[in-house]
Amino acid sequence: MNIIHSIEEMKAEIHEFRKKGKSIGCVPTMGSLHEGHLSLVRQSLQTTDRTVVTIFINPAQFAPGEDFEQYPRDYDRDIGLLEREGVDIVFLPDMKDIYPPGYKTYVEVHDLQERLCGLSRPTFFRGVCTIVLKLFNIITPDRAFFGQKDAQQAIILQRMVRDLNLDILIEVLPIVRDADGLALSSRNAYLKDNERKAALTLSRSLRLAEKMIAEGERSAEKIREEMIALIQSVQGTRIDYIEIVDSEELLPLETLKSRVLVSLAVFIGRTRLIDNTQIILS
Amino acid sequence: MNIIHSIEEMKAEIHEFRKKGKSIGCVPTMGSLHEGHLSLVRQSLQTTDRTVVTIFINPAQFAPGEDFEQYPRDYDRDIGLLEREGVDIVFLPDMKDIYPPGYKTYVEVHDLQERLCGLSRPTFFRGVCTIVLKLFNIITPDRAFFGQKDAQQAIILQRMVRDLNLDILIEVLPIVRDADGLALSSRNAYLKDNERKAALTLSRSLRLAEKMIAEGERSAEKIREEMIALIQSVQGTRIDYIEIVDSEELLPLETLKSRVLVSLAVFIGRTRLIDNTQIILS
Repeated sequence: MNIIHSIEEMKAEIHEFRKKGKSIGCVPTMGSLHEGHLSLVRQSLQTTDRTVVTIFINPAQFAPGEDFEQYPRDYDRDIGLLEREGVDIVFLPDMKDIYPPGYKTYVEVHDLQERLCGLSRPTFFRGVCTIVLKLFNIITPDRAFFGQKDAQQAIILQRMVRDLNLDILIEVLPIVRDADGLALSSRNAYLKDNERKAALTLSRSLRLAEKMIAEGERSAEKIREEMIALIQSVQGTRIDYIEIVDSEELLPLETLKSRVLVSLAVFIGRTRLIDNTQIILS
Repeated sequence: MNIIHSIEEMKAEIHEFRKKGKSIGCVPTMGSLHEGHLSLVRQSLQTTDRTVVTIFINPAQFAPGEDFEQYPRDYDRDIGLLEREGVDIVFLPDMKDIYPPGYKTYVEVHDLQERLCGLSRPTFFRGVCTIVLKLFNIITPDRAFFGQKDAQQAIILQRMVRDLNLDILIEVLPIVRDADGLALSSRNAYLKDNERKAALTLSRSLRLAEKMIAEGERSAEKIREEMIALIQSVQGTRIDYIEIVDSEELLPLETLKSRVLVSLAVFIGRTRLIDNTQIILS
């Protein structure tokens, strides 16, 4: 496995892959890898000739006061995991090369970036789109892999790729959960024991929504009310948002129909966690 | 010469060029071609294997109330001119393919986009960057050619390409002027006879600035004052801005030094014209 820090060296390797006619898969990450990331890596290994995993904790997607400084970092462990999977290249660019002094260019996917998580994190998706576009330009992947856990991110990146005429297939893979239902997230590491228990309310409220929908409920407001009640019954939780939206424009639905995204963000103590479920109604 | 409207067909042609190892030059235009554009086309023909000229009047760079509707269009004449030059492909995409319903993605080069022309045209450079990035993604040129007439545009696009890690050389070619000094512009077609005369004040004020600098003047304020006086002495002119800035960050200089851009925009009747001169001081 090749560990590359330099952008120029990365581009040179891609050039070699291309000369040999190899297809390229890319899994952009911020490190602190878990089984969710590894499911993306395995899919890339299975569907492309060469897999590049990027590890870069992207300051542009953290607002002042968010957890950029504390965000968990364990590069040695990450590299060990990726080596075991058989990844071809780990790309670990330096901050000063990605955002050199005087850096000024940002990509925005209007409307979508302002909804759901965008309400409490107004510059988050601009940061995500910008780093992902830069990585795409460096790596020129045929396919890139993202988790359904970050549903809004995946929808925005698919739109960005389509709008900017990039020939990159964005594959979105299912949420990976612990046995108790908690969606895997690097930020779960912040949770104390009692918080970890409280955090189960996210997935439980989604299962409740699924059950109501399966039983025929189609009123978004009724489903939201029950989800809110369930989460508020658990001490130490604070709802950032619970929204039931269409999964293309991310606009709130009154009556559930077609492709529905039930998405939520909840603070457990000081840790903000997200989770979602997507349901297709006929 | 191949005239292509479809994005997919354009990409297929590029794919063929690449398979044959051909380098690609791109000249993005809004049509209504003049000798300024043709100088870019000739440079592309001389320095790359295949030249693609794009003609697309980009609504995203016009604000409401600007001249999108009236902007001169003469595709047959443009195509004739390009055929005579020996261009390989003219790419004339349809509006509905470039900005399909639900289009949402825009690129911004912060700070630089807000200066000079950005003050009176706040969304102009966002529109320019977005269309140029899309065309770059479709055509994947090795080199792209722009005129020094649009100095700020060239500086912003160079920054965009660098920031987004694109491997595209932006070549900026000198302003082409009529014998009387007027910088060629598609918008010169709007000028009535008396306005055309008044418009000479743009280049005259720049020649005045150059003369003052050659004679040792280094105070930006003194140069601006004389330029303003000259322009205001001509009936039917209204200054939008006259700025003397460094040609990297586009920030106003008090004392001229290093790379200086003297840039101006002046309304001649209802027509807004721009011009500039770049001076390198040792």
